[in-house]
Amino acid sequence: MNSDSSKPVTAAVLVIGDEILSGRTKDKNIGYIAEYMTTLGIDLKEVRVVSDDEADIVAALNALRKRYTYVFTTGGIGPTHDDITADCVAKAFGLPIHHDPRAVAIMAERAAKTGTEMNEARMRMTRMPVGSELVLNKVSGAPGFWIENVIVMAGIPTVMQGMLDEVAPKLKTGVKMISETIRADAREGDVGTELGLVAKANPETMIGSYPFFDEKGDPNTNIVVRARDPEKLAAAKAAVEAMLVKVKAEMNKA
Amino acid sequence: MNSDSSKPVTAAVLVIGDEILSGRTKDKNIGYIAEYMTTLGIDLKEVRVVSDDEADIVAALNALRKRYTYVFTTGGIGPTHDDITADCVAKAFGLPIHHDPRAVAIMAERAAKTGTEMNEARMRMTRMPVGSELVLNKVSGAPGFWIENVIVMAGIPTVMQGMLDEVAPKLKTGVKMISETIRADAREGDVGTELGLVAKANPETMIGSYPFFDEKGDPNTNIVVRARDPEKLAAAKAAVEAMLVKVKAEMNKA
Repeated sequence: MNSDSSKPVTAAVLVIGDEILSGRTKDKNIGYIAEYMTTLGIDLKEVRVVSDDEADIVAALNALRKRYTYVFTTGGIGPTHDDITADCVAKAFGLPIHHDPRAVAIMAERAAKTGTEMNEARMRMTRMPVGSELVLNKVSGAPGFWIENVIVMAGIPTVMQGMLDEVAPKLKTGVKMISETIRADAREGDVGTELGLVAKANPETMIGSYPFFDEKGDPNTNIVVRARDPEKLAAAKAAVEAMLVKVKAEMNKA
Repeated sequence: MNSDSSKPVTAAVLVIGDEILSGRTKDKNIGYIAEYMTTLGIDLKEVRVVSDDEADIVAALNALRKRYTYVFTTGGIGPTHDDITADCVAKAFGLPIHHDPRAVAIMAERAAKTGTEMNEARMRMTRMPVGSELVLNKVSGAPGFWIENVIVMAGIPTVMQGMLDEVAPKLKTGVKMISETIRADAREGDVGTELGLVAKANPETMIGSYPFFDEKGDPNTNIVVRARDPEKLAAAKAAVEAMLVKVKAEMNKA
């Protein structure tokens, strides 16, 4: 991976598919990619889910690809009429689309092995914008593709995960964000104001506050401090812990 | 609910929170709301996930609220410095923000009951744009709000689900989309082209194709037909089934 500490590397995810918007299929890719990007040191900045509609897909692609280092799409690269992602990517870039000969060879070899026919539907899965790089699919054969800063992957989670492993070594990455989680053992509403002051005093860290119900069913809070610099992270963590001690002592007095 | 068959009622979801984009928290609200909307007869058309950044939230709100009947937001209405959803909604609508007196009363009563203090952080949770309706929260007290076509809900799934139940009876709804799932017992690549012809011949239905690995580990396909009109749904389902019989017979011959 090409690590460059000078500026953050950013990404967006575009999930394509009516089945996610109807609730029929529950997306499992967003959370997976989010965690994967964090591990790589790439900042996932935005996610969009759109239906299998050409105008919507093209508009979302154009908005996202201009704004972020990478756009990862999932879904819509199968063999059926509702699989229109490749056409939409070609349209967004103003590029011609063709049957990629490397993809045709992969699909033909696989068809021969599995005793299936290299028919029109399977040929559909070899269509990609001219100039694309293949993203190999070790799970089910049909490759995704990578054109400029857009990486087009399958929607099936196991296939998508394999494709992500294929492209990861080639991605530019930034300095990894590191994080510490501090369990407050306090209600969010009891520490919120003071936490805001700690956040203001530690501008090069990101401090988030996540309420949850703990094992006793009581309201509790996880405070997550994130930073790229380990020293700044440690300082902010210490400041949060000191704040918690102080606030709890004051509450016990009251 | 106010059912109006003349035009579809649409919705978007805006998920707000760094914790989703970092992968630390896995979103459980998108799929839940998607299924809920389908049951109500509301078409969920788009989902966006953005970070806790004012400019990003305001831009997404303005894009979505102008385009869809309803926008449902989740997250960012807690008591801490990173909870900025209310401010962003006020800004998007150009409305002043205030401590809603009904929300203050609810929070004060709850603070008295739980022996907690009605402090600055808890007062923060009563801020909403002037003119908002409350969305009651039976789980943890702090209400969401509803202003024009934007419904602002909590990020914690149990709280969000309760809020959705509160607003559902007041939503305009369309004619429910009904669906049938046909298990193809065939590879998607073997039926894709013919399925496209069936889809073309049944323009008032939506036909989706979803590959999966079945119980034997073999590639299989679910074909989902959706329509608002039961007769059109039945006709399209019959056409899909007839197509499957024909394609499989041809494959056996070959």
